Amino acid sequence: MLNITLLTIGKIKDKSINDLILEYLKRLKPYAKINIEELKSESFKVDNKNKAKEVEGERILNYLKKYPDSQVILLTENGKTFDSVEFSDFINNENTHFIFVIAGSLGFSKAVENKIKTSLSLSKMTFTHEMARLILLEQIYRAITIHKKKEYHY
Amino acid sequence: MLNITLLTIGKIKDKSINDLILEYLKRLKPYAKINIEELKSESFKVDNKNKAKEVEGERILNYLKKYPDSQVILLTENGKTFDSVEFSDFINNENTHFIFVIAGSLGFSKAVENKIKTSLSLSKMTFTHEMARLILLEQIYRAITIHKKKEYHY
Repeated sequence: MLNITLLTIGKIKDKSINDLILEYLKRLKPYAKINIEELKSESFKVDNKNKAKEVEGERILNYLKKYPDSQVILLTENGKTFDSVEFSDFINNENTHFIFVIAGSLGFSKAVENKIKTSLSLSKMTFTHEMARLILLEQIYRAITIHKKKEYHY
Repeated sequence: MLNITLLTIGKIKDKSINDLILEYLKRLKPYAKINIEELKSESFKVDNKNKAKEVEGERILNYLKKYPDSQVILLTENGKTFDSVEFSDFINNENTHFIFVIAGSLGFSKAVENKIKTSLSLSKMTFTHEMARLILLEQIYRAITIHKKKEYHY
């Protein structure tokens, strides 16, 4: 069974996005162990955004210390792009624990970017972190159905 | 005011996606005239997918005949990619009526692809047509807020 963690900053506030996320988690349940870790987001004002970003970055790096053998992947606009079939090939590996890291609204700190060199781009376009979480889960579900050659209408 | 049509095949069946779409339409209302045209989807079985795709393609081309002066853009995985700022520059043109065409689950017929050469890719990854509609609206909203320099947390 696939073993995937989504490491995220902050909670999903939009109820409809949350409902969709829960729906994909339900569909994924037979095929993958999906663990969503929500680290605390740091509140900020205009003049201390960078500091807040650094604090969130430290939380991410601290969490990751517990999983030195996992494959960690940052979601960024400038990351590696996959089509859905390539992504399916990448992720369908039961021997790897994948940790996908989704930044909060401030993005990743330099410390995180310097430490983690593997990244995935869902799109060159910027998505909200709530939409990114939804889209990633949808693509993981698609990746598994491609692998299982199941029919998945879209 | 921006003038944008989303030409689509079939209705949105997922209630949460529909709620999110309605939310973005509400947010867009002060800034853009957004018209969603839902053409009838053609039911199909395994052995007549191509025929159904062609029929849907004819419906698209028939609709577009009424708007010879509009800028028509197909949404496809292999289309032109924009980042959110480039997309904002592209779309913030009040003198153009944009028609974004989103295929149904079967994709576009050859006739449509041969006729319309301008295309946009939201991602190399394949999205459901329901998700594509949602993501496009979210990007149109983002494009407008970028143009207006409004704060839009993500």
